[in-house]
Amino acid sequence: MELGVIGLGRMGRIVVDRTLAAGHDVVAFDLDDEAVESAAEAGATPADSIVDLAAELGDDKRIWLMVPAGKAVDATLDDLDPHLTEDDVVVDGGNSHFERSLDRAEACPAAYLDCGTSGGPASAEEGFSLMVGGPQWAYDELVPVFDAVATGPDGHGYMGPSGAGHYVKMVHNGVEYALMQAYGEGFELLADGRYDLDLETVARTWNNGAVIRSWLLELCEEAFVEEATEDDALSDVDDYIAGGSTGTWTVQESLEQEVPVPLIYQALAERFDSRNEGRFSRRLANRLRYGFGRHEVARRRED
Amino acid sequence: MELGVIGLGRMGRIVVDRTLAAGHDVVAFDLDDEAVESAAEAGATPADSIVDLAAELGDDKRIWLMVPAGKAVDATLDDLDPHLTEDDVVVDGGNSHFERSLDRAEACPAAYLDCGTSGGPASAEEGFSLMVGGPQWAYDELVPVFDAVATGPDGHGYMGPSGAGHYVKMVHNGVEYALMQAYGEGFELLADGRYDLDLETVARTWNNGAVIRSWLLELCEEAFVEEATEDDALSDVDDYIAGGSTGTWTVQESLEQEVPVPLIYQALAERFDSRNEGRFSRRLANRLRYGFGRHEVARRRED
Amino acid sequence: MELGVIGLGRMGRIVVDRTLAAGHDVVAFDLDDEAVESAAEAGATPADSIVDLAAELGDDKRIWLMVPAGKAVDATLDDLDPHLTEDDVVVDGGNSHFERSLDRAEACPAAYLDCGTSGGPASAEEGFSLMVGGPQWAYDELVPVFDAVATGPDGHGYMGPSGAGHYVKMVHNGVEYALMQAYGEGFELLADGRYDLDLETVARTWNNGAVIRSWLLELCEEAFVEEATEDDALSDVDDYIAGGSTGTWTVQESLEQEVPVPLIYQALAERFDSRNEGRFSRRLANRLRYGFGRHEVARRRED
Amino acid sequence: MELGVIGLGRMGRIVVDRTLAAGHDVVAFDLDDEAVESAAEAGATPADSIVDLAAELGDDKRIWLMVPAGKAVDATLDDLDPHLTEDDVVVDGGNSHFERSLDRAEACPAAYLDCGTSGGPASAEEGFSLMVGGPQWAYDELVPVFDAVATGPDGHGYMGPSGAGHYVKMVHNGVEYALMQAYGEGFELLADGRYDLDLETVARTWNNGAVIRSWLLELCEEAFVEEATEDDALSDVDDYIAGGSTGTWTVQESLEQEVPVPLIYQALAERFDSRNEGRFSRRLANRLRYGFGRHEVARRRED
Repeated sequence: MELGVIGLGRMGRIVVDRTLAAGHDVVAFDLDDEAVESAAEAGATPADSIVDLAAELGDDKRIWLMVPAGKAVDATLDDLDPHLTEDDVVVDGGNSHFERSLDRAEACPAAYLDCGTSGGPASAEEGFSLMVGGPQWAYDELVPVFDAVATGPDGHGYMGPSGAGHYVKMVHNGVEYALMQAYGEGFELLADGRYDLDLETVARTWNNGAVIRSWLLELCEEAFVEEATEDDALSDVDDYIAGGSTGTWTVQESLEQEVPVPLIYQALAERFDSRNEGRFSRRLANRLRYGFGRHEVARRRED
Repeated sequence: MELGVIGLGRMGRIVVDRTLAAGHDVVAFDLDDEAVESAAEAGATPADSIVDLAAELGDDKRIWLMVPAGKAVDATLDDLDPHLTEDDVVVDGGNSHFERSLDRAEACPAAYLDCGTSGGPASAEEGFSLMVGGPQWAYDELVPVFDAVATGPDGHGYMGPSGAGHYVKMVHNGVEYALMQAYGEGFELLADGRYDLDLETVARTWNNGAVIRSWLLELCEEAFVEEATEDDALSDVDDYIAGGSTGTWTVQESLEQEVPVPLIYQALAERFDSRNEGRFSRRLANRLRYGFGRHEVARRRED
Repeated sequence: MELGVIGLGRMGRIVVDRTLAAGHDVVAFDLDDEAVESAAEAGATPADSIVDLAAELGDDKRIWLMVPAGKAVDATLDDLDPHLTEDDVVVDGGNSHFERSLDRAEACPAAYLDCGTSGGPASAEEGFSLMVGGPQWAYDELVPVFDAVATGPDGHGYMGPSGAGHYVKMVHNGVEYALMQAYGEGFELLADGRYDLDLETVARTWNNGAVIRSWLLELCEEAFVEEATEDDALSDVDDYIAGGSTGTWTVQESLEQEVPVPLIYQALAERFDSRNEGRFSRRLANRLRYGFGRHEVARRRED
Repeated sequence: MELGVIGLGRMGRIVVDRTLAAGHDVVAFDLDDEAVESAAEAGATPADSIVDLAAELGDDKRIWLMVPAGKAVDATLDDLDPHLTEDDVVVDGGNSHFERSLDRAEACPAAYLDCGTSGGPASAEEGFSLMVGGPQWAYDELVPVFDAVATGPDGHGYMGPSGAGHYVKMVHNGVEYALMQAYGEGFELLADGRYDLDLETVARTWNNGAVIRSWLLELCEEAFVEEATEDDALSDVDDYIAGGSTGTWTVQESLEQEVPVPLIYQALAERFDSRNEGRFSRRLANRLRYGFGRHEVARRRED
C-alpha cells in the first residue's frame, strides 16, 4: 500500500517510520524542507508540495494528515480539495474537535476518517492506539496502515460514523486528566503525610502487581527517578499545567448530554487553578505530560 | 524458609500456594477445618490450632496473618502472644488501619510487619504488590517469602517504620476509587453520548497503546465482554457500590494533613450516593425551586 | 410614563401591577386573551395585538418583554421590528443567554436593554432585583419603571453594555444553585446524623442572627413548615431537580474564562444526577470491584 | 436573673452587655483584670477569681463560659467543679466539638448546656443565633438569658440532648464555608469575565430583591465598598484563608454518616489550597471573615 503523509513533526514522522517498517510505501510532505529530506533518508518518497504529493499518489489516494488541529487542517484540506475524488481516503490523525471533523467530512470530496491517536511520541516503538470514525469501507481499506501505525490489529478500532473517532479520543483525554490528577492526589498525600517515603519505591512497588498499575503510573515512576533531588521528588518542577482543550471539550459535551463528570471537571479546574500557584499534584501532572508527550517541562522561576 | 500462615480464605490460600511453589515450607491454620485440609492437600503442614502452629514452627517463627481487618487480627495476636519472642516476625497482610498497626507493633512481642497487599484474588497467578512497614531487619528476613508472594523482587518494597505499609496501601486504595470513577465517567459519557458505541471495542482499542491503558481498564474490557446483554453493556448490574473503608480513611488522613483530594473525595461520595435513595439535599432543592419560582414540585411516586 | 408590557404570565403580570401601582400607565398584550382582560381589569390598557400595542404607545415607545427565553423573544421582536425606531426602548426581562441578547441588541432598531430579573413570583410584593445591560441613556430613561418593578432604587443597577445584564443574572443563578445545594448538604447531614433534630427549629434559629441567614434559608424554613409530615421533613417530595439552563451557561462561560467553579459545577451535576437512575459509572465501579476483588456484584432488581 | 460570665473577650463581653441591657445581673470574671474592670464599669459585679465568682452567685448558679474551645474550657470546668451541684447550670457558648461537649456534660456536676453561638462580634447590636443542647429543664431555666443574648425569642432554640447544640453549630459552619465559596466563585467569574463590572453595584443590586440575597452577601457588598482600589476590588487582600476546624469536623462527621457533602468538602479544600497561593474567591473569603468575625485581614506580602 502507498500512503501519503502530510505533516512530518514528531507524530507524523512516527507514522512514516512505522508504515515504512511494515513494508508499505510512503510519500511525505511538510512545509519544512528538512523534515521532508529526513523522511526521504528514512525511505519515503519526498514531495515538494501538496500538488506534487497528490500527483505522486495517483488514483485511489490514501493520505494521512498529521498537522496541528485547527486552521492547519483546513488549509491542508483546501489545498488537497481539487485533487480528491470519492475514491480517495483522507485520515485526520490529530486532536480535532469531533464537530469540526463532521463538518470536514461533509465538505471533503474524499472519504474522510477522523482518527484519534493516543500514545504520544513515547509510543514510537510500541505503536499508537487509533480510534477511527467515518465510512466503514474507508476504514477497512486503511487497515494495513492502521495495523502498522497502531500497536497492531488490537490497537485500532472502528468507532462509528464521522466524528466518532475524535469523540472517543476527546473522552479518552478527559479521563486522562482525571487519572493524572488522581495519582497526583495520592502522591501529594504521601509526600506531605506522616511518613518519610521514597516515592520512587512506592511507584515501583505499585507498578508490579497493584490494582492501580498503569502506563501513567510507570510514567510517574520514571519521573521520580529522573527528577530525584537531594531534598524532594520533583522539587525542581514548576506547578503550572498547560493545555486543556480536549478536557474542556469533554466537560462541554457532558453538559450537553447532562452526564455528571465531577472528577474530570475537577481535574480540569486544577489546571486552570495551577496557572497561578504551587501544588505537588500539579507539578507531577506537568512532569507527566513530558513523560508521554515530551512537552517541555516548565521550571520554577527564580523570584 | 518455613512460613506459618493463619487465615486460609481466598487471599491467604494464594499466599500458601505461591510460597509453596517457590520451594518454601508452609504451616497452615484456619478456623475452618476444610480450608486447612485443602491447604494440606496442596502441600502445607496442617495445624489444628494456633498453639499447634506455633509449636510446629519452633524458634525464629515467621507468621503471615491473612484474616479480616479488625477484631480477627486482635484475637489472633492475643492467641499468638504467649508463643512469641523478639526473634519472631509477624506479618499482617490485611487491610488494617495504619494506626491500629502502629498500636499492634508496639504491643506485639515479635517484630511486626504491616504489609499492604494489592492485586486481589485476580492476581493469584501473577502475584501481588506488597507494601511493607516495620523493622528493617524483619523485612530483610522475609524477603524470600515476599519474592514468592509478590510478582517478584520488584513487587514488594520497604516503605518505612511501623504503619508505613498500611499507610501506603490506604492511599493506594483512595487512588483506586478515583481511577475507577474516572473511567466510569468516561464510559458513562460514551454510553449516553451522541454515538452508538461498542464499549468493548473502545476499551480494547484503549488498552492497546493509549495513554490511559491500565490493569483497571483491562478489567473494564473484561466486564464489557462478560456482562454484554442485548440492549446495553452492564444493564444487569446494579448501581450500588459497596465497600469504602480504606477510601474513607484516606480522606480522613488528608483532612489531618490538610491536603486537598477532591477527586478521591468525590469518588467516595459517589459510593455513599449510590446507596442512598431519595437524597434529602435534592428533595430540598426541588422544593426550594417552588419557594422562589413557583416551579411545580415533583412528588414521590407511591411504589 | 407609559410602558408597554408583552407577556402577562406570572412574572409579566407582576411588572404590570407594580408599574401601575407606582402611578404609571401600562399597555398590556399577551397571546392569551384572558390574561389581557385580567390586566385590563387591574387598570392596564388592553392591546389585542402587537401592532395595536405599538400604535397605542405612539412615539418614544418603552416596551417590556416578559416572554419565555428563546424563540418567543425572537418572534416578538420580529413582530415589533417594523414599529420600532432608535428613539424606542425594548427591555427583555427574561432569562435569555447574554450572547443572544448581544445579537438581538445589534439587530433591534430600538435601544435594547437586557434585564436580568431575580426574585421570582414570590417577590410580587417586595419587588425584584434587576440587573440591566445596554445603552446607558436607555437605562436612565427607564429608571422610573425600574424603581417600580424592583424593590426600589437600590433594587436595580446598570451593569454595562449589551449583554451585561443577562450575564450577571446568569452568574447569579449559578451561585443560586450552589447555595441551594450547600444548604441541602447541611440539612441532609442533620436529617441523617446523630441527633433527632427538628429541621424547622434549626432553620428558624439560624434565620435569626446566624451567619448563614438568607432569603433562601427563609424559604427552607417555609418548606419545612409547609411540608411537615408525621415521619419526616419533605418525605413527600421527590428528589428530582428540574431546570438547569442558566447553571449550565455559567459553567460553560467559566470554561471559556478558565475560572474554576467547582461548587457551582457540583450543584449542577447533582441536578443531572437526580434525573438519572442507575448511573453507568456506578454500575461499572460495582462490577470492577468483582474484577479485582471478587466482591459479589449487586444485581438490578426486577421491578 | 443573675448570670456568671467567665471569659470577657469580644464575644463574652457582648454576652455581658446584652444580659445587663435586658435587666439581669451579671457577675463577670476573666484572667485579664482590665477586662473585668471594664465589665464592672458597664454594670457587672466583678469577680477576681472563679472561687469568688462562684461564691458571689450563691445557690442555683447559672454560668456562661465564653472561653476559647479546647483546653481553656477544661481548665475552667476543673476550677468550677468543686463549686457546682446538680442544681447549677453551665453553658459553653464556644465552638467546642460536640463529642467533647458530650464528655464534659457527663463529667460536670451541674447541668451542662452546649450552646452554638453564631453571628460573631458584628452581631453585638442585633444579637446572636443560639443553638442549645443539653437537659431541657436547664434550657428552659436559661430562656431569659437566651432571649437577651440572642436576637430575641426566635434567635435561640432547643436542639436536643447534650452535644446537639454544638452539632448543629458545626454543620452551620460547614454550610457557611460553602456559601462563602459559592459567592466567591460567582464574583471571581464576574471579575475575570467578559464585562468590566463594578462588583459593588452587582452586590448591592443582588442584595435588594434577588434570590441569593443574604447577610453574607451584604458582607460582600461591604467588603467591596471598603476595599475598593483604583484598579480592582480587593486587590490589596491576600488569598490566604485561615481557620478550618469546624469545617473539617463537618466533613469528618459526614464521612461517619456516609452523607455526601461535595460542596462543603470543596470549600474546605479551597482553604487548604489557599495556604500557598492567589485566587480571587479566596481573597474574598479572607475578607469576609473580617466582615463577620473581625479576624485580622492578611495582606499580600511584598516579595
